[in-house]
Amino acid sequence: MFTMPNWCIPTINKNHDLHFQKLIDNKTKPPGSLGKLETLAMQIARIQLSETPHSELQINQPTMLIFAADHGIANHPISIAPPEVTQQMVLNFLAGGAAINCFCRLHQIDLNVIDAGMLKPLNQTHSNYFEQRLGPSTADISVAPAMSITDVERGLIAGAKLVQHPKFKDSNVVSFGEMGIGNTSSAAALLCAYTGARAGEVVGRGTGIDDTQLTTKIALVDKALQRTRKMPESKTKNPCYLLASLGGFEIIQMIGAMLASAEQKKLIVVDGFIVTIAALYACAIAPRARHYMVFAHEGAERSHQLALKELNAEPLLDLGLRLGEGTGAALALPLLRTAAAFFNEMATFESANVNV
Amino acid sequence: MFTMPNWCIPTINKNHDLHFQKLIDNKTKPPGSLGKLETLAMQIARIQLSETPHSELQINQPTMLIFAADHGIANHPISIAPPEVTQQMVLNFLAGGAAINCFCRLHQIDLNVIDAGMLKPLNQTHSNYFEQRLGPSTADISVAPAMSITDVERGLIAGAKLVQHPKFKDSNVVSFGEMGIGNTSSAAALLCAYTGARAGEVVGRGTGIDDTQLTTKIALVDKALQRTRKMPESKTKNPCYLLASLGGFEIIQMIGAMLASAEQKKLIVVDGFIVTIAALYACAIAPRARHYMVFAHEGAERSHQLALKELNAEPLLDLGLRLGEGTGAALALPLLRTAAAFFNEMATFESANVNV
Repeated sequence: MFTMPNWCIPTINKNHDLHFQKLIDNKTKPPGSLGKLETLAMQIARIQLSETPHSELQINQPTMLIFAADHGIANHPISIAPPEVTQQMVLNFLAGGAAINCFCRLHQIDLNVIDAGMLKPLNQTHSNYFEQRLGPSTADISVAPAMSITDVERGLIAGAKLVQHPKFKDSNVVSFGEMGIGNTSSAAALLCAYTGARAGEVVGRGTGIDDTQLTTKIALVDKALQRTRKMPESKTKNPCYLLASLGGFEIIQMIGAMLASAEQKKLIVVDGFIVTIAALYACAIAPRARHYMVFAHEGAERSHQLALKELNAEPLLDLGLRLGEGTGAALALPLLRTAAAFFNEMATFESANVNV
Repeated sequence: MFTMPNWCIPTINKNHDLHFQKLIDNKTKPPGSLGKLETLAMQIARIQLSETPHSELQINQPTMLIFAADHGIANHPISIAPPEVTQQMVLNFLAGGAAINCFCRLHQIDLNVIDAGMLKPLNQTHSNYFEQRLGPSTADISVAPAMSITDVERGLIAGAKLVQHPKFKDSNVVSFGEMGIGNTSSAAALLCAYTGARAGEVVGRGTGIDDTQLTTKIALVDKALQRTRKMPESKTKNPCYLLASLGGFEIIQMIGAMLASAEQKKLIVVDGFIVTIAALYACAIAPRARHYMVFAHEGAERSHQLALKELNAEPLLDLGLRLGEGTGAALALPLLRTAAAFFNEMATFESANVNV
C-alpha cells in the first residue's frame, strides 16, 4: 500500500505585491525595463519577505544537488555513452573536473552529488557525497515497470530527507542537476504519459545520438507507454504510479528534494529537460511547489520546450546547452543575485533627485 | 578636411583553431553541449592565445565605460524623460545608485562614466569620471546635421585616447554602456541610413513611449533621413559623414573606444540598441573590429534585433531588458568568466578516465 508523504508547502502570500511593485517601480529606471529580472525579484520577494516586507532579498549559500542513477533502458543502443559513464562522471564530479564543478566554483555554489541508484555503489566517503540508493539501476521500462510503488515512496522520502540535512540549513537556494545515461528516455516517457503526446513528438537526441539511435529510442519509449496505458485508470491518473512505471531513481529523489525545498521556502532552480520533468511531477503531486521554482534555461532538446510550456514557465537563459549536470541552473545564479542586488541597492527617483 | 585616424587592428589568427577545438572537444562533455559558451571560448582563444596556444584564457579587470551625451532632438516630445535626466542619471552613476552600479559591484566590473557632451558640464572630480565634451548636446537632427565632421574626428580620437589611459592597461575586457535622453532616435536614424530601411520599420518605443510620441519620433527621424539623403553620394556612403549628420556625441566616442579596444586585442562587450549601432559603425569603419565583439543581449527594442542581424551577431542573453546603461553587457561577464573557466579547468576524457 502506497502512502504519499504529507507535503506542507506554504501558500504564497500576495498581500504585499503592491508594496513590492512600488518598490521596484520607484527605482531609477523606466518601469519594467529590467525585464525578467523584475519578475524574478518579485517572485523572491513573495517567498522571502511575506512576514518582513521591508527587509532585503537574500541569496544565501546556494546549493547544487546532482542526483545520479542508472536506467535499465540504457542497455539498448540509445545513448552516446555506455551505462558505466554515469559512475565515471560521478567520480569526475567528486574529483572536481566536470563542467558543473567549474561552474559551481566560479559562481560560489556548494556542489553535492547523490547516488540515487547507480549500477554499483562507489563506497566513497566524501563530505559532498550522499549514498541513498534505491537499487542498482531501474528495470528496462520498455518491458517492465521501472520500479515498485514502494521504491517511489522511499525515493521521495530519501530526497526530502536530504534537503532537511543540517548541512543545508542556511541555504535558501537549491539548484538541481542530474547524471544518468538513459535518463532522457525515461523523462520523455514521463512527459508523454503526463501530456498524452506520442513518443515521436517528444523523444529527442539527448546529448547527441544519430538517426538510427533516435528511431530505436522512439520505439522503446513507445513500448513503455503502451505497457503503461494498460494500467488501471486509477493508476494512469496518479503521478506516483506513472513514476513507478517510467521513472528513474534520480528523478524520484529530485521530486522529493524539490517538495522538501518548497516546504522550507527555499528557491528551487530547475536545470534542463530531466530536471524540468521532475519539476512537472513535483507540481502534479503538490501544485504549490510551482511558486518556488525558477526555470534556468531552455535547452536544445525539443521536449524540454514542451515540458516548460506545460509548466507555464519562462526560462531565463537560452544558450543552446544540452549537457545536464545542473550547468544551466548554475548559470542562473548570477541572475538571481543580480535581481536581489537591484531590489536591495538601487536608488529611488526621490533619493537620487531624478525627475521623470 | 576630415582625416580618419589610422586604425591598426590585428587580424584574427585562425591557425590554432583545430588545436582549440580539440581542447574543447576533449573536455568531459558531449561535443558542442555547452552551446554558446563553446563559441565564446573559441573566440576568446583566438584573440588571446594566438601566440601562446597552450596558455589559459583570462578575464582581467573588466571595465565598463558609460558614455553620456545630450541630443537636440530630445527637445521634441519623443522620450519618457526630459533632457535634464541625462545629467541626473550621470550623478546617480557617480553616487552608486543606478542599476548599472549594482550590476558592476556584484560582477566586479570597474565602472567609469564619460561626459561626451551633456547639456552642461558637471565640473566634478572623481577617479571614475572623464570629461571629454564635444559640445553641449548635438543639434536637432530633424533640422540640421548633429555635428561637424571635425567633431566626428575629435570624438573618435577622444574615445580612443580614453581606452589608452594607463588606468585601463591591465583590463582585457571593455564593456560599453550609454546614457542620453533622445539617443534611440539618433541610433534609429543611423540604422536606417546604413541599411536603407524606412523610419517606420526601425523606430521603436525606447524605454517606453506612448503611441503619439512614437508617431512624432518616426516623423522626426524621417525628416532627418530626408535631409541626410540630400548629401552628395560620396558622403552618404561614408560612415563618418552619416555620423556627423545623425549621430550622437556618446555614439561617436564609443566607436573610437571600440576601435582602440580592438587595436589592443581587448574584448568588446556590446550592450543594447545604441551600443550595437556604435558597433555597426565601428565595423563599417574598420571591419576587423568585429572579431573582438561579444554581443551581450537582444533587447526588447525591435530595431536592436535588426542591428544585430546586420552584424551577423548571435547575442548571449534575452531577458527583455530595455534600460541601456550597459546593464546587459554587465550580465554577460559571468558568461565570459564561465567560458574561460571551462576552457581552462575542465578535465579531459583521458585524465578523468571517462570512456565515451
